[in-house]
Amino acid sequence: MNEQRPVDVAVIGAGTAGLAAYRAARAAGARAVIVEGGVYGTTCARVGCMPSKLLIAAAEAAHGIERARGFGVHANGPARIDGEAVMERLKRERDRFVGFVLTGVESIPEADRLRGFATFAGRNAIEVNGQRIEARAIVIATGSRPTVPPILQGLGDRLVVNDDVFDWNTLPRSVAVFGPGVIGLELGQALSRLGVRVVVLGRGGRIGPITDPYVRRAAVESFGAEFHLDPDAHVTRVERIGDEVEIDYRGPAGEPLTQRFDYVLAATGRVPNVDRLGLESLGLERDARGVPAFDPRTLQAGSSPIFIAGDATDALGLLHEAADEGLIAGPGFAHLNAHALSAGEVSFEDQGRSRVMLRNKGHLRVYGEPETGLFLGAEMVGPDAEHIGHLLAWALQARMTVAQMLEMPFYHPVVEEGLRTALRDLHARIEESHLIAA
Amino acid sequence: MNEQRPVDVAVIGAGTAGLAAYRAARAAGARAVIVEGGVYGTTCARVGCMPSKLLIAAAEAAHGIERARGFGVHANGPARIDGEAVMERLKRERDRFVGFVLTGVESIPEADRLRGFATFAGRNAIEVNGQRIEARAIVIATGSRPTVPPILQGLGDRLVVNDDVFDWNTLPRSVAVFGPGVIGLELGQALSRLGVRVVVLGRGGRIGPITDPYVRRAAVESFGAEFHLDPDAHVTRVERIGDEVEIDYRGPAGEPLTQRFDYVLAATGRVPNVDRLGLESLGLERDARGVPAFDPRTLQAGSSPIFIAGDATDALGLLHEAADEGLIAGPGFAHLNAHALSAGEVSFEDQGRSRVMLRNKGHLRVYGEPETGLFLGAEMVGPDAEHIGHLLAWALQARMTVAQMLEMPFYHPVVEEGLRTALRDLHARIEESHLIAA
Repeated sequence: MNEQRPVDVAVIGAGTAGLAAYRAARAAGARAVIVEGGVYGTTCARVGCMPSKLLIAAAEAAHGIERARGFGVHANGPARIDGEAVMERLKRERDRFVGFVLTGVESIPEADRLRGFATFAGRNAIEVNGQRIEARAIVIATGSRPTVPPILQGLGDRLVVNDDVFDWNTLPRSVAVFGPGVIGLELGQALSRLGVRVVVLGRGGRIGPITDPYVRRAAVESFGAEFHLDPDAHVTRVERIGDEVEIDYRGPAGEPLTQRFDYVLAATGRVPNVDRLGLESLGLERDARGVPAFDPRTLQAGSSPIFIAGDATDALGLLHEAADEGLIAGPGFAHLNAHALSAGEVSFEDQGRSRVMLRNKGHLRVYGEPETGLFLGAEMVGPDAEHIGHLLAWALQARMTVAQMLEMPFYHPVVEEGLRTALRDLHARIEESHLIAA
Repeated sequence: MNEQRPVDVAVIGAGTAGLAAYRAARAAGARAVIVEGGVYGTTCARVGCMPSKLLIAAAEAAHGIERARGFGVHANGPARIDGEAVMERLKRERDRFVGFVLTGVESIPEADRLRGFATFAGRNAIEVNGQRIEARAIVIATGSRPTVPPILQGLGDRLVVNDDVFDWNTLPRSVAVFGPGVIGLELGQALSRLGVRVVVLGRGGRIGPITDPYVRRAAVESFGAEFHLDPDAHVTRVERIGDEVEIDYRGPAGEPLTQRFDYVLAATGRVPNVDRLGLESLGLERDARGVPAFDPRTLQAGSSPIFIAGDATDALGLLHEAADEGLIAGPGFAHLNAHALSAGEVSFEDQGRSRVMLRNKGHLRVYGEPETGLFLGAEMVGPDAEHIGHLLAWALQARMTVAQMLEMPFYHPVVEEGLRTALRDLHARIEESHLIAA
C-alpha cells in the first residue's frame, strides 16, 4: 500500500458529472482528486448526445430529400446515401467535441488526476491501483452502461449497443433494434431514414417516456409509418446464422415472421456503474440496482460523506428530449394523479404551419390543476417538440397558470400556435370543472 | 340617398382586424355591420403570412438538398425544381386557408355584410354605394397596400408586388427585389433557393427590422452568401427592354453593373389604406400618412367615436418574425437608450447543435438594464430564430431578469444553448457595471 494522500474531495469518474463536481470543489478552495478508469471524454460527447444528434442531422437531410417531392422539388431518383461519408463526418465532428472535453481534462493539474478503477476502503477512503486516498467527501460519478437481456446474448459481434454504432465505418443494410426507449427510437428512426432496413421491437408496450395513451397512439402511428415498430413484440428466437442474426417475431398484422439482420442493437436499458465500487461493506441503504439512497437536493447518501451525481443516480430528468421531430415528456400522465388534473390537446394533422412544412404529424397533451389553474406538464410527439419543450419547461419552472400562458404572445404562422390550441382546450376544461364544482 | 340603418358599430374592412372587431362587437351584444370593397379573404391568408411560408417551405426543401451533401447524403445532381408544381401546391394550400376565412365570412348574417367602398359622412356615419349608415362607433380596419417608388414606375407588368408573386403559374428565371425589409428578404431568399437568379437592393443600408450593427453584419454575410444583397445600392437606371427590365447598379466590389431581370419586385414599404375614406373633413389630428392619432391601448382616435385597428394603424408589432432561418427583433438597439443598457452576444458559427445540423450561421445580441438586471430585448439572425423569439418574448412579457432566465432549464444539445451563452455574457456585463458603479 502506497502512502496516504489526504484530500477534501475525491471524485470517482471523469465524465460530465465528475468534472463538474471536481471543478466545483476546486472553485470552493477544496483539495480534490478525480479518478478515471476508462477512457477520458464524456458519455455525452463520445457516445451520447453529440454523435446521436450528428446521425440524426444526416438522417434529417435524407428524409428532407424524400419530403421535398411534396413541394415540387425533385432529387433525380432516390438520394444516394454514402454510408462511409456519413460515418466519417459523424466521427470527425464527434472527435472535435471529445477534443474539447480532453482539453478540459488536460487543464486539470496532473497530480489531481488518477488513472485506474476506484474501490471504497471505508466511507472516507478509496483505493486506486493499490494507492489509498483518504477524503473528507467522496463523489460517485461513474455513469451508467447499457444492459443486454439474456435473449440477445451469444450473438458475438453482431450484437451492438449505442456506443458501438458510432464506431461503424459505414452503415449496415439492416438492424433490429430491441427497446423503443428514447435511444432505440432515435437511432432506429435515424438509421431507417438513412436507408437501413430497421425494425424496433419492445416488450410491454411502452414507447419512449410517454405515459399518455393519446400521445402514445400518435407516436406509434408516426414512427410506424417509417419502419416496423412493435412496442409489444413477441420475439421467440434470436439466433446468429453466419454473419447475420435471424429473428422470429410477429409482423404488423400479427403474422409470424422470420427475418435476418446484419446487427441487433440492444437499447433495452442502462444500469448505473455502482457494482464494482465495493459499496456493499459501507453499511449504506441501497436500492435494487445497488445505488445508495440519496437526498435528491443535496445528492448526499444519508448522513455519510458519500455523494452521488449524474447518470449513476439512475434518476430521470424532468424533461427528456429525443429526436428533432421527437418526443417531449413532462411529469407525465402516469406520474400525476389522473383524478386531480385536467388535460387539453391538439393534433398536428391540421396545424397550419406544420401542414405548410409537410410536418403535420403528431399530438400534444397539456395538463393543469383544476383548482389553481396551474400548468403541470405535457407530453408530445410532433414537429419542433424540442422547442415547444423549452417553452413549456420555462413556464413550468416559473409556476405559470394556464391562463397566464394564454396571455403570452403567440406569433403567426408558427408551430407554437398548436400549443395555444391545446392550452385553450385545457383552459376551457379547467373552467368547466369550476362550473361543476360550483 | 337610401334609408338610414342605425347600428352600434360599423366596421370598414373584412380582413383579420375587421372580422375580429365585428365579432367582438357582436359578442358584446352590439348591432354591427362590416363593409368590404375588395375581395373577401385576409391579407394574411391571401397574400401574406400563409403563401409566403408556403414558398419558404418549398425553398427550404430545395436548400436542404444542397446542404445534404455535407452529411454524405447526395441527390444525383442538382435538384430539379418544378416551378409549376411549386406554385400549384402553394396556391392549392393558400386557397384552403382562404377557404377557412370565407367560411367565417359566410357565417356572418347577410344583412350585416355590406359590399362596397365606405366613405365617412361625419364622425358617426359612413356611406356605402350611396347608402348612409349611422353608427355609434366606426372601426377603420382597411389594412395597407404596397407602395412603388417613382424609379420603378413605368415597368408595366414586369413590376410586381408581393401579392402578385403568389399568382404566378411558374417561377421566373430572375427577379430584382427592391427593398431588403422582411418581405423583400423572405421572398428574395426563397426565390433564390428555388433556383431563381435574385438580387436584393436597398437604400440607406437597413436590413429588415435590425438596428444592432453586429446583427446587421451577420445578416449581410448570411444572406449575401446566397445572393447579391446590397442594402445601400446605387441604382441609376431601371428600364423596361422588351419583356425584361434592365438595371444599372453597383456590384459586390463596387463595380458598375448592367443586368436584366424577368421581374422587378417592389418591397419598398406599405401605406395604410386611409386616403380614400374622406377622413379630411372630420377634424381629426392625423399623422403624415393620414392615419388619425389614436391611443395604442384603446385604439380610439382622440375622443371621437372612431377606432383604428390592424395594418391600417401603421404601427410596428413588438416582435417581427421573418424566415425560418430568419430574423428576430425586439425593442431593438435603436429604440433603447444605448447608454442605459448592457448587451451580451453569441455567434452561431461554433454553437454545438447548430454546427451538428450545418446551420451554424448568425449572431444573437441580448439586452438588459444594468441597474435592475431586467431583460429588455434581443436581435438575431440565425437558426431557429422563430422559436428563440418565442422564448424571449415570453420572458420579456413575464418581466424576467437575466439572472432568472439563467435559472431556467436549457437542455442539451440544443440551439437554445446559444441563447444561454449570450445571456451569460450579458449577465457578466451587468455584474461588471455594478462593480464599476460601486
